[in-house]
Order: sequence, then structure tokens, then C-alpha cells
Amino acid sequence: MHTVAVAGGSRSEIKELVQLSVEDWGDQVKFIVFDTEDNIDSNDLWEYRGYSSEEDMVREAVRSVATGESNILLKGGIKTHTLLKEVLKKEYKLKKQDLLSHIALVNLQALDRHILLTDAGMNITPDDDQLEQIINNAIQVGQSIGLIKPKVALISSAENVNPKMPSSLTADRLTKRFTDHKEATVYGPISLDLSLSEAAVASKRFNGPIAGDADILVVPNIDVGNVLYKTFLLFGDATIGGTIVGTKVPIVLTSRSDKVISKLYALRFALMQADSNQ
Amino acid sequence: MHTVAVAGGSRSEIKELVQLSVEDWGDQVKFIVFDTEDNIDSNDLWEYRGYSSEEDMVREAVRSVATGESNILLKGGIKTHTLLKEVLKKEYKLKKQDLLSHIALVNLQALDRHILLTDAGMNITPDDDQLEQIINNAIQVGQSIGLIKPKVALISSAENVNPKMPSSLTADRLTKRFTDHKEATVYGPISLDLSLSEAAVASKRFNGPIAGDADILVVPNIDVGNVLYKTFLLFGDATIGGTIVGTKVPIVLTSRSDKVISKLYALRFALMQADSNQ
Repeated sequence: MHTVAVAGGSRSEIKELVQLSVEDWGDQVKFIVFDTEDNIDSNDLWEYRGYSSEEDMVREAVRSVATGESNILLKGGIKTHTLLKEVLKKEYKLKKQDLLSHIALVNLQALDRHILLTDAGMNITPDDDQLEQIINNAIQVGQSIGLIKPKVALISSAENVNPKMPSSLTADRLTKRFTDHKEATVYGPISLDLSLSEAAVASKRFNGPIAGDADILVVPNIDVGNVLYKTFLLFGDATIGGTIVGTKVPIVLTSRSDKVISKLYALRFALMQADSNQ
Repeated sequence: MHTVAVAGGSRSEIKELVQLSVEDWGDQVKFIVFDTEDNIDSNDLWEYRGYSSEEDMVREAVRSVATGESNILLKGGIKTHTLLKEVLKKEYKLKKQDLLSHIALVNLQALDRHILLTDAGMNITPDDDQLEQIINNAIQVGQSIGLIKPKVALISSAENVNPKMPSSLTADRLTKRFTDHKEATVYGPISLDLSLSEAAVASKRFNGPIAGDADILVVPNIDVGNVLYKTFLLFGDATIGGTIVGTKVPIVLTSRSDKVISKLYALRFALMQADSNQ
């Protein structure tokens, strides 16, 4: 049994998502919708709580996960910034890690497995310590969705350490930090094709701990992550769902322009994480 | 009539390329192969010139384009670095612009047009002046392949200028440098989806000088370009051919792992550029 607090949820696109959720999970997933808008639900899809100000609405939605009433927080028709600012207030004690990060679950038609991509949505130009935390967050999430000793690829433009290429040096330093990690193989610099394509590995005769079989892609900065995310969607026929992690409950960020199937996929990803929290 | 000097060309993968070239262009494209390896051609596919050292071979291949005997330089089985080092020697006077850059011609199944991507292969972390030159090189190449007033998208993670996002600030500064450009529309920051997808533009109600109809993608650094290039290939069913530009003749860089169809596409791209040089 899961309860999803939806901040700004009385909107048609959220209603569409909740209807699909009911088809998939029935009453195993319950929704509480917090909004300043009138209730658009006439079929008892959700429990509705109305507020006169956005401030009150956001506070109550966050309080719902802070008190344990809900175990997933979903962003509806409000700004990401507004929601996260409230989440990060110390009084809620919702921060579990030093750094929050964005992790996307990616289903590419051409791959026989799901992969994780981080950070394509939150940390803009992470330094080494922040990347270390981004990697740790991803490993934890990987475990929560059932990955056994995930392979974590630290993406750069090539597989060699090039003193002129900052991302290759960063990847090399981070690989050393994780050398003795028991629960994941963290390796870079490695290019995207060597991370995801066994054909590329064979063609380039690449020999390394990751060889086309990466489970988690860690990008050096948000621009690399963002073009990957969008190219997967636009040209790779991918389904992608993103959550913010590092908090006690997963936070699902969807945007109005996402297809409903992507929103459902993001919710599924959050449910998997919430399951492992129980 | 074009003549292609191939440095390190007596290799099976180059033979395969030349055979396809003959099928497409007959005797309109002639090849001179420079190599330390024995001649593997027994069908008069090319003119062969053998050397005892790689140094001699590379020098003579570059001299062939410097003297005008050949008008395209193609890299065969030698290192890119070795070839470019020779090309950049002042004695040849082959440098036409201050900065050489890498431009890829991209044919994506999902798009109804070819696009250019730069710089995904040469300049690692270009500063503003270098990006300006990269943009100018791309506009010139765009014209040489028939693009009328190309739309040049300066890629970032979003369409707004965010003081915390360096690529958005860079794109904004460069947009201002090109405000009065007569022969191209240069605009950014803009995200990949708003650059290439009219559906994304409609969904986000984006209103700008580029709206899903970009002709040229300019990336902030090589890592962004490299993941784009490889994702297009791996998941977008793309054909991509790259050349180095800024020299008097286009330089075709292919790697052994490229499919022959990509090599042929790169050669076609170089032929289009060479045509406009004539």
C-alpha cells in the first residue's frame, strides 16, 4: 500500500495519470491531491484537499510525506523550485543524504534492460565530492530497484585519460575513490558507445570492467545528461521517468509536456524505491 | 572531378569505401593511396604510392593536397593526431581559418532534413572566441552544402538564461555576437528538443527564432557533442559523416569501427564542400 501526495494535482494531466495508475495497481496506490484549484475528480480517484494559497498547499503536501501519511511526493502543476525549497526546510527532516540528485530510469527499445541516468536534471556542474554523492545516490537507488552489483559508467568522450579533457580526469579520480566499493563497479572515463553497445566494444577491441553492459550512466554535467535524456526520448523511442533522490521519500517530477506513459513510468520507478524503503 | 589523397589507405576498409565510391560517382572521384603497407588493390581502384616510413607517407599525402594535386584529404590507417600535426605545418599554408573544427553531417531517420553537429570531435572546452569561430566555420560549411540562411542552435539544457548554468550564459553571449549576422540565425540557449522537435515546441508553447527547425547544432563542449553523436548512431538509426574544416581542403576522419556507409556519407559531405571550393 502506497500513498502519493500530489502537490498541485487537480489538473487533467494528473487525472489521466491517476486513472492509469488505478488500472495498473488498483487500490494498492492511493493519491492525496493538494491544490488551490477546484477538485476536478468526480469519481473518487483521489482524496482532495483544497487550499486558498499555493504556500499552504505546498506546505501541507510536504507535511504529508514528512509525517509519514504519504510515502511518495509527486509534483503537479507547480514549479519544481517551489516544491524543492519547501522539501529542504530543516523542520521536515526529509533530507537523507548531503546532496539531492536527479535519477532517471530509462527504457530504450534497443536495449534488453533498463538503465539509470544521473544527473540530467538537478546538479548543473557537480564537483568531485558532489559527483561522489551522485554516484552513491544512484547505487542506492539501483539496489532499491533490484540491481545486483550495478556497473556504473562515468561518461566522457573517450576511454582514455586525456589531460586536456576535464571529464576524463574527473572520471579517473572518481574511479579511484570507488576502487574498493563492494556493491558496485564504478568505472571511467568511458564513452557512451562502450558503455551501452557490445558491438562497439567488439569493434574497438575494448577491454575493461564495463563493456557495453553499464547499468548506470553518470554524466559529468547537466548539459551532457540533458541531451542524452532528450535524444533517448526523441530518437530512441525511449520511455523515461525521473525522480529526485536523497530525500526520505522519492520525489516524482513530471512536466506537463511529458507523455502520460512517461509519468506512469516515473511513478512506477518511485514505487519501486518506496517499496525498498518499507 | 575530385581527387582524394588517402593517408594510410591500402587497407581493406578503405578498399570497401573506394568500391562504393566507384559505384556512386564512377571516375568523377579519383583516389591516390599513400601507404607504408603493400598495395592491396589489383583492380586499378586507385593510384598507389608506397613509402618506407610513416613520416614520408604522411608528408607526401599532405603535400598532395597542399599542391592542389588532390582536393580532399582522407585519413586511413594512421592516427588523427599524426595527420593533423602534419597538416598544420606552416609550410603547407593549408590553414584557412584561425581554428580548425570538427563538423558532422547527420541524417536521422526521424527528421526530414540533414543537420550539422559541431564540435563533437576536436575542440574540447572551447571558449567564447573559439565557439564564435566554430559557429563561423559551420555557417560556411552550411552554405557550401546548400543551406540558405541556416538556423544555428546554441545548445544548453533549457531555453532560459540561468546564471548558475554556464552553457546558458555562453549561448546568450554568443547570440549577441551574431545578432546582426546576415547569412545565419544564431540563437541560444535552447534545448535539444526545442531545436529539433516541433512537437516539443508546441507542447512547451515555445516562441523563438528557432522552433524545432534547427539546421546546425552547436554544443558547449565535446562531451555534449560526443554523447549526441553516439546516441544518434546507436539509438537514432542515424548515418553520420564527419570532417575537419577550417583548412583549404576538407579532411575526412573515419575510424575503423565506422560502418562503411558512414565513411561514404563523410566522403559525400567532403565532396559537397570541395565542390563549393572549386
